[in-house]
Amino acid sequence: MPQTLTVGIVLFEGFELLDVFGPCEAYGSSNAGGAFKLATVAAEAGPVASAQGPATVADYPFDAAPSLDLILVPGGIGTRREVNNPALLEWLRTRAAEASIVTSVCTGAALLARAGLLDGRSATTNKRAFAWVVSQGPAVNWVKQARWVEDGKFATSSGVSAGIDMALALIARLVSADAAEAVAMTMEYEWHRDPAWDPFAKIHGLV
Amino acid sequence: MPQTLTVGIVLFEGFELLDVFGPCEAYGSSNAGGAFKLATVAAEAGPVASAQGPATVADYPFDAAPSLDLILVPGGIGTRREVNNPALLEWLRTRAAEASIVTSVCTGAALLARAGLLDGRSATTNKRAFAWVVSQGPAVNWVKQARWVEDGKFATSSGVSAGIDMALALIARLVSADAAEAVAMTMEYEWHRDPAWDPFAKIHGLV
Repeated sequence: MPQTLTVGIVLFEGFELLDVFGPCEAYGSSNAGGAFKLATVAAEAGPVASAQGPATVADYPFDAAPSLDLILVPGGIGTRREVNNPALLEWLRTRAAEASIVTSVCTGAALLARAGLLDGRSATTNKRAFAWVVSQGPAVNWVKQARWVEDGKFATSSGVSAGIDMALALIARLVSADAAEAVAMTMEYEWHRDPAWDPFAKIHGLV
Repeated sequence: MPQTLTVGIVLFEGFELLDVFGPCEAYGSSNAGGAFKLATVAAEAGPVASAQGPATVADYPFDAAPSLDLILVPGGIGTRREVNNPALLEWLRTRAAEASIVTSVCTGAALLARAGLLDGRSATTNKRAFAWVVSQGPAVNWVKQARWVEDGKFATSSGVSAGIDMALALIARLVSADAAEAVAMTMEYEWHRDPAWDPFAKIHGLV
């Protein structure tokens, strides 16, 4: 790993705010020791509207994005459209091959699945939208009850706020356990350290 | 209350990402029943860089912001500069008088305090930066151990992720308890429903 890891945050119209900014808060925390640099990427540079309204600025268009060490693919209602966007899926395949870590939050797993990146791997996703995401990746070993799943270079989290727990686990792996604890404390966040913790699977009738 | 409440999200350079987007995720959830419309405001319309890097677009400059029912003032390193910004403090005083609910997350309470809006009221803030925030509002009844504090039209939360718990409590108050539960479930978020829950006060030596 290089000294500073560049995190590429994929944006598209209708991305889910907390899927993006929960992990960004953790990676961007000063307590992460400057280990991460955040770069937002989208089809075009400039404002990208979220599912909830507020727009975030994409720093780079896909074809001019810097080298990315860690990729973050969020979910949100926009994924329903983007699973049929061959340019995005091809970009994900190319950049995932070059990255050290590839992550998704919530229904972002549908995009990784449609890109074929999760075939033969274990992964999880949002529990309310589980059936739809599963339909996008029939060759994936979908885990019904998990806060997040790590399989090789891929890490996929359950819905929305689960991305925070996964990001903290990745900070623990990539930087140190102490750094992850310091980040969680600074965020005043009750970190779920156990990837098997998932009361929402039962609520949504998956187990 | 009008049918749809306009939430004015105050942005300034160096705002803390999760202070803004945790509550925005909750208010903007479809499970909140369309009760809230989000409007970002700043000194000038356009991109505003966060403390962690990614920039968010301000929809309106302060002087052209629409009527605001609920105001959200985030924290972040930028508050150290903004406590000395008379234009922002005057805007907060004017708009707070017109709003139904005025909220802060984390060190955003320092801005409400410097505007004089919390004098004689109970409030809380980030537990790591507690002493600094207290120094900005000597006439405020600062609560050392609280996830969030509600006092009349004001609601102030502890650090960063505490804003999510406060936003859910406000949805329960302004919309319905069922709506708040549905939002938390959709976010797959373990909501801390008790405003007195605050393990971070002890960690930071405040109790």
